[in-house]
Amino acid sequence: MTSVWNPQAPSPMPYHRYRPYDERVNVPVTDRSWPSARIERAPLWVPVDLRDGNQALAEPMDIARKRRFYDLMVATGFKEIEVGYPSASRAEFDFVRHLVTEDAVPDDVTPVVFTAARADLIDRTFDSIAGLPRAVVHLYIATSPVWREVVLGRGRDEVRRTVLEAAEHMARRAESGAVRFQFSPETFNLTEPDFVLELCDMLTGLWDASPDRPVTHNLPATVEIATPNVYADQIEYVHRNLSRRDSVILSVHPHNDRGTGVACAELAVLAGAQRVEGCLFGNGERTGNVDLVTLALNLYAQGVDPMLDFSDIDHVKETVEHCNRLPVHPRHPYAGDLVHTAFSGTHQDAISKGLAHRATHPDEPWNVPYLPIDPADIGRSYEAVIRVNSQSGKGGMAYLLKTHHGIDLPPRMRPDYSRVVQEATDDSGREMTPKELYDLFRSTYVVADGEVALETWSTQPDGSGRHRFVCTLRAGDRTGDYEGTGAGPVSAFVDALAGAGFTVRVLDFTEDDHSAYAEVEVNGRTAWGAGETATAAVLSAVNRGLR
Amino acid sequence: MTSVWNPQAPSPMPYHRYRPYDERVNVPVTDRSWPSARIERAPLWVPVDLRDGNQALAEPMDIARKRRFYDLMVATGFKEIEVGYPSASRAEFDFVRHLVTEDAVPDDVTPVVFTAARADLIDRTFDSIAGLPRAVVHLYIATSPVWREVVLGRGRDEVRRTVLEAAEHMARRAESGAVRFQFSPETFNLTEPDFVLELCDMLTGLWDASPDRPVTHNLPATVEIATPNVYADQIEYVHRNLSRRDSVILSVHPHNDRGTGVACAELAVLAGAQRVEGCLFGNGERTGNVDLVTLALNLYAQGVDPMLDFSDIDHVKETVEHCNRLPVHPRHPYAGDLVHTAFSGTHQDAISKGLAHRATHPDEPWNVPYLPIDPADIGRSYEAVIRVNSQSGKGGMAYLLKTHHGIDLPPRMRPDYSRVVQEATDDSGREMTPKELYDLFRSTYVVADGEVALETWSTQPDGSGRHRFVCTLRAGDRTGDYEGTGAGPVSAFVDALAGAGFTVRVLDFTEDDHSAYAEVEVNGRTAWGAGETATAAVLSAVNRGLR
Repeated sequence: MTSVWNPQAPSPMPYHRYRPYDERVNVPVTDRSWPSARIERAPLWVPVDLRDGNQALAEPMDIARKRRFYDLMVATGFKEIEVGYPSASRAEFDFVRHLVTEDAVPDDVTPVVFTAARADLIDRTFDSIAGLPRAVVHLYIATSPVWREVVLGRGRDEVRRTVLEAAEHMARRAESGAVRFQFSPETFNLTEPDFVLELCDMLTGLWDASPDRPVTHNLPATVEIATPNVYADQIEYVHRNLSRRDSVILSVHPHNDRGTGVACAELAVLAGAQRVEGCLFGNGERTGNVDLVTLALNLYAQGVDPMLDFSDIDHVKETVEHCNRLPVHPRHPYAGDLVHTAFSGTHQDAISKGLAHRATHPDEPWNVPYLPIDPADIGRSYEAVIRVNSQSGKGGMAYLLKTHHGIDLPPRMRPDYSRVVQEATDDSGREMTPKELYDLFRSTYVVADGEVALETWSTQPDGSGRHRFVCTLRAGDRTGDYEGTGAGPVSAFVDALAGAGFTVRVLDFTEDDHSAYAEVEVNGRTAWGAGETATAAVLSAVNRGLR
Repeated sequence: MTSVWNPQAPSPMPYHRYRPYDERVNVPVTDRSWPSARIERAPLWVPVDLRDGNQALAEPMDIARKRRFYDLMVATGFKEIEVGYPSASRAEFDFVRHLVTEDAVPDDVTPVVFTAARADLIDRTFDSIAGLPRAVVHLYIATSPVWREVVLGRGRDEVRRTVLEAAEHMARRAESGAVRFQFSPETFNLTEPDFVLELCDMLTGLWDASPDRPVTHNLPATVEIATPNVYADQIEYVHRNLSRRDSVILSVHPHNDRGTGVACAELAVLAGAQRVEGCLFGNGERTGNVDLVTLALNLYAQGVDPMLDFSDIDHVKETVEHCNRLPVHPRHPYAGDLVHTAFSGTHQDAISKGLAHRATHPDEPWNVPYLPIDPADIGRSYEAVIRVNSQSGKGGMAYLLKTHHGIDLPPRMRPDYSRVVQEATDDSGREMTPKELYDLFRSTYVVADGEVALETWSTQPDGSGRHRFVCTLRAGDRTGDYEGTGAGPVSAFVDALAGAGFTVRVLDFTEDDHSAYAEVEVNGRTAWGAGETATAAVLSAVNRGLR
């Protein structure tokens, strides 16, 4: 029985070297509220690309790139932007000065600058922001046991004292009320919860936070170590137990080592976080920071105002790719090159039907199968939605023929053409462009010269409303004049064909603005044909049936 | 106050067109158990790259690529592998036949084949597997209201009847006990929970599932529509309410439209799922299916046997990239080119200390800052861990000098060299290779000709154990013979320098296998120097101090 339920064998990898997360994280949880919560409002989004993201680049941005990125953030609607780590390098310092000298901070935007807990670095940080209309000074220190022991070589008391001294120094340097404060206990998700609360509460008091001038406490998942529900529990615990909660902006800073950064951010917001730090498309050390674009558009897709403007996602993507010199993956949510494309036949059929339904119900909420949002909302196009290869179904090719070439393939003709396309793509192993689909359609169904040809022909209604069809027709090497009558031109042509010795039955016939399509039975065989006129379509079908 | 707490402005995008997920999903939840659960065992991993992934490629795999991918899966330890959609195209059918004729299915591997709910397609599916030692036939149909109404044009009763007829046909065609059955209510996450249960329970009965021959019910998040906790609630509801639960393998199939596919899979396993379908590195329509590599290594990093072998992750990555003709992103968890690299100085310092700690505590659980797992466990190397640019600190450059060039920089020398590197990288804006770091180190600290030069010199202990230093020394344009004595060769050389008129004090001195390093004070200035001998190091430092 085991073999059917889980026949997997032990891995040869040394997994015994690692510890379960619950030996490292001890958050006391009793009842949780976050699993029943809903996100009804966008949190404050704070992009850290210019600091945290920039630190993670093989080639850090120069000032021109930093400025271009910064301008994009402002244009997108970010109101709080971490602009650098001014004490870390000359380039970082210079960019903050650039913002001052170029007067580049709009009235509703607040720059954030990052500093370690050392008086000389804090001084250099404050030097960098002199002249900014407003700023947040962001103090960080690693707080978890491993970092304390292995990296800092300090105990809890010494870390607390270092933070206290740094915070006091910051308070002294912040002469004007235009500076607010932020604290990050780096490695929060590996730190004892009571120590986090102790440090945060100490600073809330020391910095004299108030509802009018709140402090930001930012809780990073510096390295992801557990399923995202554990981070949510950690955030909810702090959210519930912080002192002077009405004077604290609770912020999160998720990374993506386990590929769950987006989930961590979302569950953290459910758990009480009001502010989310991240990068555009998820740049950052190793696997990166959480992606703010995905987070915002996730809200969008649920009808919640994202408070950001991503209506030209390709512009955003190209700017970020230029600045970071890193690509956005083709399957990246919302922005990837392939994410508004359907390759499989069932998907194409469904999308095609969904779009048709939408065309007649434009006021319904968006509800097109397989498309979480309307690509047009972010400046992407339907045209790329469907490509056709051997895995594709009849819906996709019908959609492409219609949108690119105005050919409205009759439903009953689609399976026939689908087989033709599948044969062609099976042989080539490649996808077909709309042009190739159109050419294949014409070469298959429009038969210019076959067994039967019309040398001249005309048709018109007679006085009684019946149609009369007169023609000179070649069949093989015999040519003769024929005529026929019928309820319409098609049946009149069929009658004329009967005179020439061909027993034809029209099984299906339709026309659109450009073309006609006919399915006929001739000499016991059925075939589809197409042409610019009804006569040409029937003739093509007859000739295909006679092959 | 609002302006500080959340100064963001409404987006110009038409978010009103979308609905909150809870208007589309109605899963009755009372008490949840999943937020308190833990994953202690790997679920059954089922890669669907050869079907679902392949359907999403612009150029589907040819048989050679499919076979290469399949062989990789077998070698990696996958025991159930979806190999195709045989009725969808000739290539899909042919590959399943290839597995039969080439006898390519090991005794402990079960292929899965996918089919729509239509008798002729089911027949072709069974034709494809004739001769396979065992197989799972996987029936799917879309079940949610939108799909039923817009795509299928059928009500619940008609969908149920279609499923029933297809399932009966499958049962008739499965003569031997070697075939098991799987059912996917596609668009599960948008389907009424009672309808899902109705269909699944009907099939569990019809297919006569038992603990020895369980049926697989696979519940896709076909398009992600909500935060991952909602999917977990949906899975837990089905898990608790399925009939004959001991005869059902509960499976999930998450997509990644919201970037939360990994989280959905993990929370679903917490909620009762026993089997996870996905793709290697997350290929699939649009944003792809959940990434099985990340899921398995997430367990690994917590000390849980992943039941798969990813000890050569680059081989896995290169094979998948070849078959899919799609790249793995440089920041992709575990496998990306950059994810075992640290650029920032604080990260490099911490990693360096963590690795040093680990060298002396090799039996402790893995606990190196910023490295979730040991890169060596997946065949990656520490060498790539650290690169140096203007954002980097002293730890990184020290680490690279040591591992690449055997230079064990004294701790007190590191800040000095750090400033040198930062100056160089600030100017160039680029990262430095280990070779460049070494060259910069030598050109900075090893002074071949300066103010003071030794033309000849020798040193040796005298009978009393004190050292005597004899030399011909040039200082500027004066040359003379000098000698000195001291407790060791360094102090003897300093004594000789005093004779030549240079007051030198050695502040720090160390040697490693290859080099010596000295910090001196000369004429009131301090400077570091290095060289292949103690004498050369002191001389370099003196000359730098005299500049």
